[in-house]
Amino acid sequence: MRRINREFYERSGADGFIVSSRQNKYYLAGLYSSRGYVLCCQDEMEVLVDGRYYAEMKSRYPQENIVLCPDHAAMMHEINAFIRRSRISRIGLEGNYLTYHAYQKLSDEIDCEAVSVDLDGLRKIKDSFEIESMRKACRIACDSLQQILPAIHAGMCEKEVENLLVFTMKKNGAQKESFDVIVASGLHGAFPHAKASDRVIGENELVTIDYGCRVNEYCSDITRTICIGHCSEELHRIYDMVLSAHDAALKTIRPGALCGDVDAAARKVIEEAGYGKYFPHNLGHSIGIEDHEEPCFAPGSQELLFPGMILSDEPGIYIEGLGGVRIEDDVLVTEEGCEMLSDFERKLIEL
Amino acid sequence: MRRINREFYERSGADGFIVSSRQNKYYLAGLYSSRGYVLCCQDEMEVLVDGRYYAEMKSRYPQENIVLCPDHAAMMHEINAFIRRSRISRIGLEGNYLTYHAYQKLSDEIDCEAVSVDLDGLRKIKDSFEIESMRKACRIACDSLQQILPAIHAGMCEKEVENLLVFTMKKNGAQKESFDVIVASGLHGAFPHAKASDRVIGENELVTIDYGCRVNEYCSDITRTICIGHCSEELHRIYDMVLSAHDAALKTIRPGALCGDVDAAARKVIEEAGYGKYFPHNLGHSIGIEDHEEPCFAPGSQELLFPGMILSDEPGIYIEGLGGVRIEDDVLVTEEGCEMLSDFERKLIEL
Repeated sequence: MRRINREFYERSGADGFIVSSRQNKYYLAGLYSSRGYVLCCQDEMEVLVDGRYYAEMKSRYPQENIVLCPDHAAMMHEINAFIRRSRISRIGLEGNYLTYHAYQKLSDEIDCEAVSVDLDGLRKIKDSFEIESMRKACRIACDSLQQILPAIHAGMCEKEVENLLVFTMKKNGAQKESFDVIVASGLHGAFPHAKASDRVIGENELVTIDYGCRVNEYCSDITRTICIGHCSEELHRIYDMVLSAHDAALKTIRPGALCGDVDAAARKVIEEAGYGKYFPHNLGHSIGIEDHEEPCFAPGSQELLFPGMILSDEPGIYIEGLGGVRIEDDVLVTEEGCEMLSDFERKLIEL
Repeated sequence: MRRINREFYERSGADGFIVSSRQNKYYLAGLYSSRGYVLCCQDEMEVLVDGRYYAEMKSRYPQENIVLCPDHAAMMHEINAFIRRSRISRIGLEGNYLTYHAYQKLSDEIDCEAVSVDLDGLRKIKDSFEIESMRKACRIACDSLQQILPAIHAGMCEKEVENLLVFTMKKNGAQKESFDVIVASGLHGAFPHAKASDRVIGENELVTIDYGCRVNEYCSDITRTICIGHCSEELHRIYDMVLSAHDAALKTIRPGALCGDVDAAARKVIEEAGYGKYFPHNLGHSIGIEDHEEPCFAPGSQELLFPGMILSDEPGIYIEGLGGVRIEDDVLVTEEGCEMLSDFERKLIEL
């Protein structure tokens, strides 16, 4: 189990926390469930679970304070006992995840003042378990795309590629996909968030595949743009430009660098080539239990990089009526610089 | 597009609504997106979307008021213009879906009073498009299980069954699974919410498969418990008891019946056989854009059934150290009585 660092107590002015979000409960206490709470104060931690999780949690954490609460009333009774015992006068609730209804109900029922807190910052720096989980999620994703490449051909629809890729990742040991896989072919490639559709992939078209999978609840998030046959010279040039932007960003990723400067390094390459307006999104985002976490490689971001952060490097160019290219890898900030967790050919693959 | 009935205005005391949840935006305006808003008052409806959805929405609904809002500031500007133009003094926000943070921000930024409302009741009664979508989602789910039955065998793990079933449903035209498929074999069957795991399915074991898929965003939700080989006489007896409970409930489903009475009809069969304490959940729940909606077949529920409601009928018996059985079908309330949308052998299948 992990503890909430002192910084969060000081910044929020709370002397305790009721952790309710699935991602933060899993991070702190290994509990991946929508129900139940993790209660924290500086001296103590207590996990409230229902009957579905009690036996498993108790056997995994015999030294910890796991309490079986069959219903809402039992949960509230335990929460108020914890508040009294730990002399908590102000407790933090996750106002960025609890619904308005749930927040109001919880703050009405507790015997102290409530304050809304954002605990996501806890998860910015990954430890070795998290890094190894994400490394494995990257490996499974890359191996799976490699395995299905021979099956991708003109005449097949985008959804078929999506279905085969998800099936293969799960067969190779993933829990499930990280998010709905994007397969955007031909003119669809111009839409960064296009879903895999019934569109039939044509000869000599680019296909952008943005996908990933989960291992131990941790995500990978990778994009490759491949070509069925041979694409036009213009698309080739755009591909090489996106790859240069990707490389330029990689060279700047190290502890102490500003997230905004990493974004700028990639954006400069694309802007100088005159395609700046066709790169409409951030360069990248953190990844972890959620497929999108903070901080981001966003223009102007003053966030500093630290060893153990994992972010995506994903420049893209999208031109309506022509198509699009995106190349994305997951990058670990190391003591010396950075390391790509995803290892898959980055030059244009022409099938 | 659909309108919010007068009843919701009267009950909430609001003279307008800002609809923000994906499910209610899709229901009212065909917009399946986490971003954007549907604004409603008694005379008018307006849909605010970003650049990803504008062209598609405009072409689908040329007569409707679709407004392109590239960012948050533009959304707020339009919302306040709508409030002024429609002379709204009190507007309903979806406090059961908006996070506490988002609710506070929105209510701070609007030029009128905010009140928390629950709009899910809008979706209780399904129209013909919704019914046909769910009928198709049921058909694909049933056909897919039928197709993979020959491939299920002892020695295969639960996750392999899950993966093959999801792959087959998508191949047969489903958008995706409705929820994480449950495959619970042998002793795992005693846990109603067991996830598909690495557990290897043994000879002469029961396997409970609780699954479904989406068509036009509408879910199916079906459970079958099958046997690999031959199971014990006791499990056979339990299976027949669950099937009798399922049938007893079906006989009571008709317009005007109370949801609690449908639950009671099934529960009576199981209680009279002395297994009441092994049936720890509600008999069923409504299904639609979400896999769990209101109302439920819950003990004591005073909710009335109306034609067009679709609920699951899913009695189950779970005994630790022995295993479990659940049989679930999706049932449409018709003018005369009810109709099962899922059509799959309900007698015990022994593979």
